[in-house]
Amino acid sequence: MFNLIPKEEKFFEMFQESAQNIHRGAALLKEMMETWQDPAGMAKRIKDVEHEGDTITHNIARKLNQTFITPIDREDIYSLTSALDDVLDLIEAISDRMLLYQVPSPTPQAKRLAQIIYDSTAEIVKGVSVLGKSNDVLKMCVEINRLENEADRITRDAIASLFGEGKDPIQVIKWKEIYENLEDTTDLCEDVANILESIVLKYT
Amino acid sequence: MFNLIPKEEKFFEMFQESAQNIHRGAALLKEMMETWQDPAGMAKRIKDVEHEGDTITHNIARKLNQTFITPIDREDIYSLTSALDDVLDLIEAISDRMLLYQVPSPTPQAKRLAQIIYDSTAEIVKGVSVLGKSNDVLKMCVEINRLENEADRITRDAIASLFGEGKDPIQVIKWKEIYENLEDTTDLCEDVANILESIVLKYT
Amino acid sequence: MFNLIPKEEKFFEMFQESAQNIHRGAALLKEMMETWQDPAGMAKRIKDVEHEGDTITHNIARKLNQTFITPIDREDIYSLTSALDDVLDLIEAISDRMLLYQVPSPTPQAKRLAQIIYDSTAEIVKGVSVLGKSNDVLKMCVEINRLENEADRITRDAIASLFGEGKDPIQVIKWKEIYENLEDTTDLCEDVANILESIVLKYT
Repeated sequence: MFNLIPKEEKFFEMFQESAQNIHRGAALLKEMMETWQDPAGMAKRIKDVEHEGDTITHNIARKLNQTFITPIDREDIYSLTSALDDVLDLIEAISDRMLLYQVPSPTPQAKRLAQIIYDSTAEIVKGVSVLGKSNDVLKMCVEINRLENEADRITRDAIASLFGEGKDPIQVIKWKEIYENLEDTTDLCEDVANILESIVLKYT
Repeated sequence: MFNLIPKEEKFFEMFQESAQNIHRGAALLKEMMETWQDPAGMAKRIKDVEHEGDTITHNIARKLNQTFITPIDREDIYSLTSALDDVLDLIEAISDRMLLYQVPSPTPQAKRLAQIIYDSTAEIVKGVSVLGKSNDVLKMCVEINRLENEADRITRDAIASLFGEGKDPIQVIKWKEIYENLEDTTDLCEDVANILESIVLKYT
Repeated sequence: MFNLIPKEEKFFEMFQESAQNIHRGAALLKEMMETWQDPAGMAKRIKDVEHEGDTITHNIARKLNQTFITPIDREDIYSLTSALDDVLDLIEAISDRMLLYQVPSPTPQAKRLAQIIYDSTAEIVKGVSVLGKSNDVLKMCVEINRLENEADRITRDAIASLFGEGKDPIQVIKWKEIYENLEDTTDLCEDVANILESIVLKYT
């Protein structure tokens, strides 16, 4: 029932698997936005990646319940896993909403935000891959924070310009929500960065 | 000043009282949505239940300050109490908004979401009643998660259909908020489930 | 690298600095709303205060990393610092949005909410200044909760009256967001109060 010998490397491997899966979801969202080819098919592929993410999260939780001694505190494993999961859930929700709301095509600002999410998840992959091995994690956290600030600026301006264009209010409501969801995704990446940072500071 | 002999059962009793009170609020919201008879009177009754909830929360906090040895960690008692309180606060806010926004009558999707909230709080009552006694809590958590996923699906579709009906934008804004509040309530029920799950895993 | 002698007073001083800075931001927001003179200049000054806040937050984090023994638990220092930072970030976002959305002038309800935020941050300043010295902190927390309830009432009514006035939907969307941001600021002040309360209860 219990693994009495700590299998430290196993949790770090699982975090990497989770981070790579999120990055896969972000790459699909970026492609969906950029090409706008077969958006229904792309949304379906993102949904599949999200399901894969649920499996990974479930496996980490099961492993956690079976492990007596963990390489880092249980609550840190739990927080990191949840925070990674939240990023992918929102990426899936965005792709689903783009379809459901039948937006004609992504705006330049939406494409730019999808690119920033892609870049942020790339930093998460790098950060998680050196977690427990190097303080370089902190550099990735700084970069994720910078990307979040950029996303915040783009989103505020994009919403303000929606208001200024004499657009149909229904279109304004749809795009405002999509922009806010995109910006929230970079906030969730920042939450992951904050957890990575606190883990590094705690164990070094 | 201090109860040096731990009164373990007392906190569990108070959690049950809180959970039952929330379920009472959810039952009134469901009835309000279904019958739409005297919505002002129903909103008033939900407000009373929320005040009762504040009293219960206050009593738990006071008990916590007077108790030296607690059956579970103080922060778990605090988290569970706050999470239960948040569910009821949002139920009250929804009933108040339905009135204030003068919506003509609840939509089928709003009724369905109120039913899901009712079912979720029923699971919370069951989960809290066996907390500390049985691992069955975990089954209730799985069911609450399932209900939250269903609510998410219904809400996304309900909002998308608002956009597709050529509705007055003001009505779209009102209903979008009410739907999101209903969905957020099931999220808050899931937060309660996550806390219950972590307590069970921590102490077994 | 480490300060082996705990410098307890230093963290409390830094919290005070942070709280006073937030109160400065709230005072500027109140002035901006009340006078509506040179809103761009006022938003710029609030941005400067927010940058100063980032510096204070950064200094607390650096100090925390260099300090071996802290006067209160590290996670409490971290939570309080983040919660204080969040209040100021939202104050800045509100002033920026008022400008970007080109609202003609603040409504009476927006002015009233800015006053409540100002009062709440005044209580935070008082609470932080006696933290670790007196239980009077709890009185300030009660007052912050009361102010939050008042803000919640004003916001709900303000949004409901937006809907009732036959306003342009675009103006409704803009004002609904600004009102919600103002109300969220009082929620964030309440989060600070909850952390202050938990610190007082933990160490007395």
